[in-house]
Amino acid sequence: MKPGYKAIYQQYRQSIVSGLLKPGDKVPSVRVLASELGVARKTVETAWAILVGEGYLVSQGARGTRVNPDLQLNAAPTLDCSPAPVDELSPLAEVMRNQSGLLHPGIPALDAFPYKKWLLLGGKAVRSMSAGEMINPPLLGYTPLREAIAHYLNISRGLSCTAEQIFITSGYSFNLRLILNALTTANDKVLFEDPGYFFGAQALKRAANNLHFVPVDEHGLNVDYLQQYHSDARLLFVTPSHHSPLAVTLSLPRKHQLLAWAAQNNSWIVEDDYDGEFHYTRKVLPALKSLDSDDRVIYMGTFSKTVMPALRLSYIVMPRATLAAFRETAHISESGQPVLTQKIVAAFLSEGHFYKHLKKMRPLYSQRRHYVLRALEQVYPGIFSVEVSDGGMHIVAFLHTSTQDVAIAMIWQQHQLEVSPLSRWYNSTHKRYGLVIGYTNVRTQEEALSLLARPARETRALLKQQSEFTAGY
Amino acid sequence: MKPGYKAIYQQYRQSIVSGLLKPGDKVPSVRVLASELGVARKTVETAWAILVGEGYLVSQGARGTRVNPDLQLNAAPTLDCSPAPVDELSPLAEVMRNQSGLLHPGIPALDAFPYKKWLLLGGKAVRSMSAGEMINPPLLGYTPLREAIAHYLNISRGLSCTAEQIFITSGYSFNLRLILNALTTANDKVLFEDPGYFFGAQALKRAANNLHFVPVDEHGLNVDYLQQYHSDARLLFVTPSHHSPLAVTLSLPRKHQLLAWAAQNNSWIVEDDYDGEFHYTRKVLPALKSLDSDDRVIYMGTFSKTVMPALRLSYIVMPRATLAAFRETAHISESGQPVLTQKIVAAFLSEGHFYKHLKKMRPLYSQRRHYVLRALEQVYPGIFSVEVSDGGMHIVAFLHTSTQDVAIAMIWQQHQLEVSPLSRWYNSTHKRYGLVIGYTNVRTQEEALSLLARPARETRALLKQQSEFTAGY
Repeated sequence: MKPGYKAIYQQYRQSIVSGLLKPGDKVPSVRVLASELGVARKTVETAWAILVGEGYLVSQGARGTRVNPDLQLNAAPTLDCSPAPVDELSPLAEVMRNQSGLLHPGIPALDAFPYKKWLLLGGKAVRSMSAGEMINPPLLGYTPLREAIAHYLNISRGLSCTAEQIFITSGYSFNLRLILNALTTANDKVLFEDPGYFFGAQALKRAANNLHFVPVDEHGLNVDYLQQYHSDARLLFVTPSHHSPLAVTLSLPRKHQLLAWAAQNNSWIVEDDYDGEFHYTRKVLPALKSLDSDDRVIYMGTFSKTVMPALRLSYIVMPRATLAAFRETAHISESGQPVLTQKIVAAFLSEGHFYKHLKKMRPLYSQRRHYVLRALEQVYPGIFSVEVSDGGMHIVAFLHTSTQDVAIAMIWQQHQLEVSPLSRWYNSTHKRYGLVIGYTNVRTQEEALSLLARPARETRALLKQQSEFTAGY
Repeated sequence: MKPGYKAIYQQYRQSIVSGLLKPGDKVPSVRVLASELGVARKTVETAWAILVGEGYLVSQGARGTRVNPDLQLNAAPTLDCSPAPVDELSPLAEVMRNQSGLLHPGIPALDAFPYKKWLLLGGKAVRSMSAGEMINPPLLGYTPLREAIAHYLNISRGLSCTAEQIFITSGYSFNLRLILNALTTANDKVLFEDPGYFFGAQALKRAANNLHFVPVDEHGLNVDYLQQYHSDARLLFVTPSHHSPLAVTLSLPRKHQLLAWAAQNNSWIVEDDYDGEFHYTRKVLPALKSLDSDDRVIYMGTFSKTVMPALRLSYIVMPRATLAAFRETAHISESGQPVLTQKIVAAFLSEGHFYKHLKKMRPLYSQRRHYVLRALEQVYPGIFSVEVSDGGMHIVAFLHTSTQDVAIAMIWQQHQLEVSPLSRWYNSTHKRYGLVIGYTNVRTQEEALSLLARPARETRALLKQQSEFTAGY
């Protein structure tokens, strides 16, 4: 991270946001600006790449690079509204991270959490602290929690695993680092879904030298493609239960095909079951790991979606053949998770509150999804289409005709609606466009309608302007 | 981590431990064994290197490699006593990690912790949880805790920093990863002390491609050496208050010299102030960071030593020029620390309990160190010598004549005394030999005497055998 490109990026972003540079204006070529500023071309290229990625600039090949002609800038630009302590951040990461708004994907229903039970268990866990629990926590996790998770997974997700295979972690980035360190060497081929979990792709681009993307269609990951091009992959990340973000379910034949691919090529599959607990139909497909007779699947689960994100508690299920590798990695570079939170969650699980809570959340989330789907139809008729899947915590509202999901998401975010532009979750150029919308905290039909109505005028104006612009060609 | 070397390592260790191979026996050469087993030479070399490092084998150059003739194996070998879930671990890491025994360096006095206050604050923190505290925690830390830490550092450690510069982390390995990601690129030169913190060196050997070691003498890090050979370093890790493990304090002239070196070469210094809170004399030297007028020092502090390791809470102070780089790194690869523990610690600090607790611990630790020093003199007259420093949480008992600290530590560990062999903390061949002994949990003079007496007979026998062996040459 050299300061060079960032300064250029910020200066140009500021110029565009403040109106000094207008939509359609040409910006200098990489060669010219690099020589003018006395920096490497790479530096300018990086700044341009970010600005293009964020939609401020568009590259038009030999015709040069311009300020995005479709750019819609409001009187009070979003970026200037960001709170002081984060003002120097990449706005991309910032926008994707912000959870304080509404409709943010992946946040559990905060109003439906069993606070009383939780406080009771929390108080108990605090009071029962022993001297032995003051020293470093067990590296792989607090034993009663590992046991409770193994029990839960056996009963609810159809896995057959033991507590010994459970590794308690602090979340997605921990899991990713741990798995890469334990199972791969520097140049191993690593595969990720396209589209795929935004932060996963970002983190892997940094951590894996030999990263490739595998397309996803309406049946989930394209396993034929995998077999054809990637028999030499070491590791594949996949979201079979509800694809992130498309929410489609990997079909059963593909699941078997995928497991066969891994067995044949000695590859490891990481099953990210980030919201597999939430299914609203009777047709519950088993977790990939439950079909994994060759023990090629590392299963990842999290309490961020089922309990609360503030816990920073998640876990992986290690295949038996990998136990030693994971332990060794843990011994060299990890130091365990805080004991207190592990104790509370262990009691939450083993006393049955977790199961009860999930059972309550399923119909609630299904209901809340319905509110949002109906509101979308009413407020934005003909603009979005939604392919309803069997569960999860978010929907994807695809744009029928527009590709302006980034601009629309920025409008919505100005109204504190923290939806995410679908195109940002793609890494190839075969993008689809739409909004990823979390519905778990929308309490009533009226609330859904009033929230979605907030950015309606501006959204329609943007789309109208765009269609006139297109028609004008 | 290929299984190959580990299998070889384990097989030979087992053969030695079980007595199949006897002290002095020759083992096959790398070339011969590699060809016999059909593995790469590197694989055998790695296994041999670990066995040599752990003292099972000794390499005698052209005369080949033998089972260590000084090896003292007890009827019930340590390694077979390890509990089932960790039996496949590298015994090195395992032994260094084990905290369940006595005399382990770096564990605070568990009997002197203000439990009542803590439980009260814990209960309060649990009960006051708000919905806003259920979502992902702030990436850089819970604001009241960042403020409380800044306040504490200003008052007690002489730093002038603001809450904005505090980054709450989960411990040493987190800090290390964060700092490397934020401030270095792949081939930047990174420097570490020799000897130096055992786990730090292990982790850096994995994470930094271009790692070098800088010798430490009785005044701390050798800054002349640094200036002579490492003007091109990007990052230096140093423990100025009480060197880890030698416990010497970096002299004030050297501190200034070190800061000048960093300013001159645009290098970053990481000050690991892991137990700087514990000083028992009036001659309190300021933290390096407090003298850092050029803002080249990243300060690392931890609550593992001052409160309890189970918290997994520590922090760094970011130089102003690095704020953006750290934030960007955090946004890409981190997700914050659990809110609950941060809330409890914030209250512990801001309500003054932390200060009171430290104030009580200083005379207590000084007293307990005295118990252990006296017991060492009485039980092992003429065997160890200790250079008493101004504070810290451990002493180094240097062996006068022997180099068998690994074998001695193994004996002590069989008596549940989790002392650490000093030579293991070195990376060069200029090693010193001794035991790193934690004294914070030794409550009385009698306890000190009885603990140290446990391995006395076997320790003396080992040393006697060794001196006869030497005399026999």
